[in-house]
Amino acid sequence: MNEKNLTDLLEKVRDHRMDLETAVSHLKRLPFEDLGFAKVDTHRAVRTGFPEVIFGQGKTVDQICKIAESLAARSENILATRCDRNVYDEMICRGMTCRYHEAARIIVVNPAETKPVGSVTVISAGTADMPVAEEAAVTAETLGNRVTRIYDAGVAGIHRLLEYATQLQRSRAIVVAAGMEGALPSVVGGLVACPVIAVPTSVGYGASFNGLAALLGMLNSCASGVSVVNIDNGFGAGFQASLINQLDRLTAGSES
Amino acid sequence: MNEKNLTDLLEKVRDHRMDLETAVSHLKRLPFEDLGFAKVDTHRAVRTGFPEVIFGQGKTVDQICKIAESLAARSENILATRCDRNVYDEMICRGMTCRYHEAARIIVVNPAETKPVGSVTVISAGTADMPVAEEAAVTAETLGNRVTRIYDAGVAGIHRLLEYATQLQRSRAIVVAAGMEGALPSVVGGLVACPVIAVPTSVGYGASFNGLAALLGMLNSCASGVSVVNIDNGFGAGFQASLINQLDRLTAGSES
Amino acid sequence: MNEKNLTDLLEKVRDHRMDLETAVSHLKRLPFEDLGFAKVDTHRAVRTGFPEVIFGQGKTVDQICKIAESLAARSENILATRCDRNVYDEMICRGMTCRYHEAARIIVVNPAETKPVGSVTVISAGTADMPVAEEAAVTAETLGNRVTRIYDAGVAGIHRLLEYATQLQRSRAIVVAAGMEGALPSVVGGLVACPVIAVPTSVGYGASFNGLAALLGMLNSCASGVSVVNIDNGFGAGFQASLINQLDRLTAGSES
Amino acid sequence: MNEKNLTDLLEKVRDHRMDLETAVSHLKRLPFEDLGFAKVDTHRAVRTGFPEVIFGQGKTVDQICKIAESLAARSENILATRCDRNVYDEMICRGMTCRYHEAARIIVVNPAETKPVGSVTVISAGTADMPVAEEAAVTAETLGNRVTRIYDAGVAGIHRLLEYATQLQRSRAIVVAAGMEGALPSVVGGLVACPVIAVPTSVGYGASFNGLAALLGMLNSCASGVSVVNIDNGFGAGFQASLINQLDRLTAGSES
Amino acid sequence: MNEKNLTDLLEKVRDHRMDLETAVSHLKRLPFEDLGFAKVDTHRAVRTGFPEVIFGQGKTVDQICKIAESLAARSENILATRCDRNVYDEMICRGMTCRYHEAARIIVVNPAETKPVGSVTVISAGTADMPVAEEAAVTAETLGNRVTRIYDAGVAGIHRLLEYATQLQRSRAIVVAAGMEGALPSVVGGLVACPVIAVPTSVGYGASFNGLAALLGMLNSCASGVSVVNIDNGFGAGFQASLINQLDRLTAGSES
Amino acid sequence: MNEKNLTDLLEKVRDHRMDLETAVSHLKRLPFEDLGFAKVDTHRAVRTGFPEVIFGQGKTVDQICKIAESLAARSENILATRCDRNVYDEMICRGMTCRYHEAARIIVVNPAETKPVGSVTVISAGTADMPVAEEAAVTAETLGNRVTRIYDAGVAGIHRLLEYATQLQRSRAIVVAAGMEGALPSVVGGLVACPVIAVPTSVGYGASFNGLAALLGMLNSCASGVSVVNIDNGFGAGFQASLINQLDRLTAGSES
Amino acid sequence: MNEKNLTDLLEKVRDHRMDLETAVSHLKRLPFEDLGFAKVDTHRAVRTGFPEVIFGQGKTVDQICKIAESLAARSENILATRCDRNVYDEMICRGMTCRYHEAARIIVVNPAETKPVGSVTVISAGTADMPVAEEAAVTAETLGNRVTRIYDAGVAGIHRLLEYATQLQRSRAIVVAAGMEGALPSVVGGLVACPVIAVPTSVGYGASFNGLAALLGMLNSCASGVSVVNIDNGFGAGFQASLINQLDRLTAGSES
Amino acid sequence: MNEKNLTDLLEKVRDHRMDLETAVSHLKRLPFEDLGFAKVDTHRAVRTGFPEVIFGQGKTVDQICKIAESLAARSENILATRCDRNVYDEMICRGMTCRYHEAARIIVVNPAETKPVGSVTVISAGTADMPVAEEAAVTAETLGNRVTRIYDAGVAGIHRLLEYATQLQRSRAIVVAAGMEGALPSVVGGLVACPVIAVPTSVGYGASFNGLAALLGMLNSCASGVSVVNIDNGFGAGFQASLINQLDRLTAGSES
Repeated sequence: MNEKNLTDLLEKVRDHRMDLETAVSHLKRLPFEDLGFAKVDTHRAVRTGFPEVIFGQGKTVDQICKIAESLAARSENILATRCDRNVYDEMICRGMTCRYHEAARIIVVNPAETKPVGSVTVISAGTADMPVAEEAAVTAETLGNRVTRIYDAGVAGIHRLLEYATQLQRSRAIVVAAGMEGALPSVVGGLVACPVIAVPTSVGYGASFNGLAALLGMLNSCASGVSVVNIDNGFGAGFQASLINQLDRLTAGSES
Repeated sequence: MNEKNLTDLLEKVRDHRMDLETAVSHLKRLPFEDLGFAKVDTHRAVRTGFPEVIFGQGKTVDQICKIAESLAARSENILATRCDRNVYDEMICRGMTCRYHEAARIIVVNPAETKPVGSVTVISAGTADMPVAEEAAVTAETLGNRVTRIYDAGVAGIHRLLEYATQLQRSRAIVVAAGMEGALPSVVGGLVACPVIAVPTSVGYGASFNGLAALLGMLNSCASGVSVVNIDNGFGAGFQASLINQLDRLTAGSES
Repeated sequence: MNEKNLTDLLEKVRDHRMDLETAVSHLKRLPFEDLGFAKVDTHRAVRTGFPEVIFGQGKTVDQICKIAESLAARSENILATRCDRNVYDEMICRGMTCRYHEAARIIVVNPAETKPVGSVTVISAGTADMPVAEEAAVTAETLGNRVTRIYDAGVAGIHRLLEYATQLQRSRAIVVAAGMEGALPSVVGGLVACPVIAVPTSVGYGASFNGLAALLGMLNSCASGVSVVNIDNGFGAGFQASLINQLDRLTAGSES
Repeated sequence: MNEKNLTDLLEKVRDHRMDLETAVSHLKRLPFEDLGFAKVDTHRAVRTGFPEVIFGQGKTVDQICKIAESLAARSENILATRCDRNVYDEMICRGMTCRYHEAARIIVVNPAETKPVGSVTVISAGTADMPVAEEAAVTAETLGNRVTRIYDAGVAGIHRLLEYATQLQRSRAIVVAAGMEGALPSVVGGLVACPVIAVPTSVGYGASFNGLAALLGMLNSCASGVSVVNIDNGFGAGFQASLINQLDRLTAGSES
Repeated sequence: MNEKNLTDLLEKVRDHRMDLETAVSHLKRLPFEDLGFAKVDTHRAVRTGFPEVIFGQGKTVDQICKIAESLAARSENILATRCDRNVYDEMICRGMTCRYHEAARIIVVNPAETKPVGSVTVISAGTADMPVAEEAAVTAETLGNRVTRIYDAGVAGIHRLLEYATQLQRSRAIVVAAGMEGALPSVVGGLVACPVIAVPTSVGYGASFNGLAALLGMLNSCASGVSVVNIDNGFGAGFQASLINQLDRLTAGSES
Repeated sequence: MNEKNLTDLLEKVRDHRMDLETAVSHLKRLPFEDLGFAKVDTHRAVRTGFPEVIFGQGKTVDQICKIAESLAARSENILATRCDRNVYDEMICRGMTCRYHEAARIIVVNPAETKPVGSVTVISAGTADMPVAEEAAVTAETLGNRVTRIYDAGVAGIHRLLEYATQLQRSRAIVVAAGMEGALPSVVGGLVACPVIAVPTSVGYGASFNGLAALLGMLNSCASGVSVVNIDNGFGAGFQASLINQLDRLTAGSES
Repeated sequence: MNEKNLTDLLEKVRDHRMDLETAVSHLKRLPFEDLGFAKVDTHRAVRTGFPEVIFGQGKTVDQICKIAESLAARSENILATRCDRNVYDEMICRGMTCRYHEAARIIVVNPAETKPVGSVTVISAGTADMPVAEEAAVTAETLGNRVTRIYDAGVAGIHRLLEYATQLQRSRAIVVAAGMEGALPSVVGGLVACPVIAVPTSVGYGASFNGLAALLGMLNSCASGVSVVNIDNGFGAGFQASLINQLDRLTAGSES
Repeated sequence: MNEKNLTDLLEKVRDHRMDLETAVSHLKRLPFEDLGFAKVDTHRAVRTGFPEVIFGQGKTVDQICKIAESLAARSENILATRCDRNVYDEMICRGMTCRYHEAARIIVVNPAETKPVGSVTVISAGTADMPVAEEAAVTAETLGNRVTRIYDAGVAGIHRLLEYATQLQRSRAIVVAAGMEGALPSVVGGLVACPVIAVPTSVGYGASFNGLAALLGMLNSCASGVSVVNIDNGFGAGFQASLINQLDRLTAGSES
């Protein structure tokens, strides 16, 4: 409800076209409606073109399917992350249109082609970091970004990374997934001028403490321009990379 | 050394205008020069317009001054972070041109006016988080961004934040500094569509464990679009916000 | 044994109606009986109307059933928490009267209707926090409180919470269960004037460290009036909410 | 702004006693004012009789004094916690009316007599826990509660505690401050039927890890009815004890 | 090899009853044999009457059986701790004489009756702590101590413990096993004058962090005379209690 | 109050030599008096000959002096631990009789000669562990034990320890203070048959984490017969060693 | 590409035997090729005689086999660590030549006899540490070192270790694997003059925290000459021991 | 005492040139003397040419001086680490010959020229890591190694490191000191074939947790050939690098 709507309402009251009770009823809901822009789940999706997201972990197959069906009625490219294949199988059983990205453990419900824009690069340090990197890559792709993958480019084989110098410099946002000591984002951050989103992974053993070592390493990165998301949070990294890559579309006209 | 320089050199060799020894000498340094884009300190600064940065903590006054003098010979708007006033006093003694931002503990050497662009918003949860927020804000300003400050807007007084709804929606990148439980970035992240850079601060006591509680809270944020930097790392947050806000300038033409 | 009983006993001794040996025997047990109010398991139950509680985790089905049978002989509404369905099945086999709350994993033995009093509200941040929230809600209900549930009202969708403003203000005690960053209790605590009992849940992954992030966040809450129980301790939160809601019944006449 | 105020305003508009512009101006602030119950700092104070609170730690003497002066214009019994004596001295210099509780490190600005109600008991395990216990006790007293102190009643001398059995049973809320292993709240919780608020203190050395041992001990309390606040957070414990003790005054009529 | 043996050997050399080569060969092993008292596995067992101990965890059934068979050739009352029933079954299959203590998960190979001496008391806080307490109790019994068990005597039901006051005072060493907040050893330590060995158990959930809370609580015990062993180390506690209880037998004559 | 006192009282009631009111008044305090053996501070001291102890850390000079004066009226050999020299100076000023052990930071008030009994050995790994070792040694000496010191006998110079083999074997209790990796108690525990009390010290740097490394090492000791006290808790170790060494005096006749 | 190659290329350009485009194409790859010595996987293997290594954990059987087949085409003695027997079975199925070291969980592909050189000693503290010790030993053997195993030589039985004094002194590098308190490397380090590589193992329970206790103990070792690798990282320890033992072969002539 | 000495002694006994008592007296000390090779402080120094080392931290100036004087009587190049300048001043006062390395905080007592051998390289990531790097470098130099320093060569400026490729490849042991995320050892380890000793430093802030982040990063290094010492332990790293570099001198003839 913007200022014009408010003035309209008051004019109606003044002109006796609306009784007091109705007006009060409208205005009482104003605090919540006027928060409107906070209604991420529905309003922001419409405004920004970003699809809905279902976090599958800790939900039953039935719960995921029901939420997906509800969202499917009005959206495309709904992401359901952290889903095993049996969730996908059940969705197919229920007649839903969806696509399963096994490595990323992501289901896209109502998949729709979008013309990918900009340039997001997703790098993984080792083979074992690939599931997290794929979660980031599929997320970014589904959100409409052009995505380039550079996998298995760890610090010990830095020359492999250097071969992609041109691609790195062309990127508008880079996601780096790495476990163990998590040093790769620092190296990448030293090579590029765009924002780097670091994702520590739980890959490792012993003193990796399930990703803690990588997390701390990334937070202490000596390279500027690196920020960090939760351990194994490929989705979060892909999502923020998408926000950055498509920033102009999201905020266009916002200052006019 | 770009491809054109390389061709020029080879032409000189072919045309006997450069002897082999000189050419070999140049080319031997090629691996390092051609890594060029990695030379953050010098090349990137020139290319991106981003000034040099001196991390003052753990350096003596003399060390900071010498590095600053060296950089001052060829750059403007050099940032020296984590500097007490006595560093500034010494610089003035040595005849350097600089400005001191006391709350941010930042010195800007060779300050130069730049026309601020875009929109970066810096939010602090409490009064005690202000030094970190200021470090972010001054960093972003010095890097050429238009910066808006919203301070003392903690979760317990969320209505104060809501008064800035328009400003939040207009932002291209938002830095949120918060200590204690660090809940503010989640709330902000739920309200906006641009990237949010969360900075945990060491403000608090007891089970805040010097910022650990805030750090973990931010990493576990239920809001998408939030990434995190090190505890009290206002500079890092301001720097990444600047990268995001000025992304087009930095990567312009990169895809043509 | 209260003062009157003591006087009675001494009168019997004085009047030669009880021999010394019998009196000494009674009095020797006095230290323990006179601690009486410490005999939580039996005396407090009678006095306060609060039923017995069996903590099922780490006990065998047989152990739980035997304790339940023993208590069932003299109490109603006995709570057995952290019980899987097979415990319930065995109780039914043994002919006990009981009711199973699957989501809460609670069995109520000798269930009896009580007229619910006051107002306890139980809020969960996400769907995955529901089992903990249900443990709190069923505990509070069984203890005789009127309970209102507000589920899936996380920080990112704060408007959903605001729709329940009237209910929140009417509550005499509020339980808030949240995992991940655990920010919800701070937000709720900033909205109401009654005590808030925060329950961190182990919901999350990576740097949630099985609920540690939520626990620290809640302990550092910037909102006054929030106290915290152990991770996943829905029972403890529901129990304390019940103590608060029914405080007058428990302490009535205590100051007269 | 409650419903009646809203109706009044609309009547004024309808009756042409207020022009549209003025009405819009008022209503535009409605979202925030109508969140009213969230405006802890001002509205809740008025409604509940609870005074303002200034958290002194991390603020300069000047900042504390200015906030205190601002609040002193309209409130009594303003609490300023974590304040050293020099803050008090400065307030006196500035002509403010205030009282200093040295052990509690609390200043009460505009102190006013209130008739204490109910019964809050504050227990400390050792002599060294007294500052935290006093912070709780002075907070509760200033908030209008009748407070009883039982200090130096640690687990090793449990008989001292037992001498206060009558007082414990008469309490409507009990705060227990303990460092080291933090076992006292469990013992107290086993003796009483009212809510117990446990405050771990940073008293101890070695494996107390600045209060962590006490904090974990209290969170794992085997006694029902115990909840926990942050390490050394005497204010928070005293505040919640006050909420519980005066619950009926705060929520009176809420269910009618 | 004691001084007398050494003199004998030298006399043989002097008297040409032993050639130099043989003497050198004996003396070369002297450093290790003369460390003799360090040969815990063999010498100490003989000297002190303490049987051998096999730590079963992390060993295969076959490994445990082979070590047991080897020791069984020369010892009685051999303890094999942390053994599941299938180890026992295999030993029976192999024709060994042994007894299985299921709750303690201890096998005693070559069980032999010994007249129990002194008085060791083993206390457990809760039912779930019983396996650890039993490991301590069976260890102490097998080592020849008279053992009294007081189980399920947690802090919340301290009166149950007090009923055993006479037994506690009669004890020469007390083992207290407790999980969760681990407060029981402090309470027991405050009641008795003999050494208390505290065993934290991994019983609990959430912020018990698998026994860490209990461990820290016990290390910070405010009662003097309490020392602590590893989490769940019932054997270690029972062993040290036995050392203390039988100290005079072990060191008899050592000061003469 | 023992059984005889109780019988006496009842006889007086029966014989009308005591009125009911007086009897009730006595008996009401019975629970606490009959806990008698729990009154560590007064009763146990008398019974066991162990002096009082004041833990000085966190107390003001004045507080320590007042407690000491109070105890000095009826006890000898009062230990005041963790006291700097200025506490001692103040005690002398106030005319108290006391002796200061500087290295141990212990004051003994009303020092009295006792004939030392048994054999307690205190070992320190390094020079820097000496203050903790001295706290243990002086504590044990003051409590009447014959104490032998073996200092600077770390694992890297194990031969120095071996020279004391006879002394080690003669000991009835051994205290081992060690920082850094805390390996010494394991080595000692493998050499002797008496109980070993391990004291981790905060000596070290980096990954010693203020004694955590030593603490964990000692808790995981592979040698049986080792138990552990808090980091730097020399007093606790000396106290328990004393309990063990003098066990027969303390529990004499307890089994008759 | 070394200096000579570079001169050759330039000569070809000068002599018109290579056109500019081809030369530029070669030189553009120079940065990466000239990093050559960084191409560990291929170049270093050839130069040092060290075989390739596949870290099997977290890879599928198929992935491991494919990498192994690829490497097998040009190398011998390829190590595949952390492989279960089913990986070996699959390799045999695919017709590869390989040998399985079950205890070490290592497959050697294309096993080839090498004459072992120098002297590497691998020590394990307990039976349960053997898998890690074997990983180190088999790694070192496969890399061409003469390896001596001393197993089950923990601190509590130090005399067993002393019997190997000659072997220890003869070693050029020693690997020590130990869990629990991890004290063995300190003892070994105090006995020898060669480098000691300590490997903490996850063997233990309770406060061993999956190897953390051993790790911290080793890092704090009071013996000089001890360095540490990750928990359970037998491969890393064996690899570095090999580097040290064969140092002269690797760096021969490097200083000439 | 070696075998020859032993035979000599026995011959003397056999030939009646030594009486039995004297022989027994010698042989009784044999266990300890024959452990001889364990007497690091004296014997190893003589054998290996390595000087004595005094760890100054936690010792008084007087203690350090006395130990130094004692050692100075028979050794050269005695290292005293972690010493402030005032220790040096006092040594000069006492007439000792010594040299102070301020940046390394090392005093060398009785400095003597040695011809440096081999090649040890010490690298530091940042300026603030220099004190630790210097401790390693001065240690290695004093122990007789040829040392090359490469300082301020962090990951973000990796090209600076690459300029030293020849030096790196020529090294026989490399020490890498790095704080913050500690990524540099991984990068160096990927470039060279000699052992790398990583030293985490406490340089950093926030989530560096005083060097924990760097420590974990280094332990999880994905590069083989890297081992780690304690945080800030420059001495330990320099010492082990020296052991490796001079391995042949130390173990020469050991296999013959």
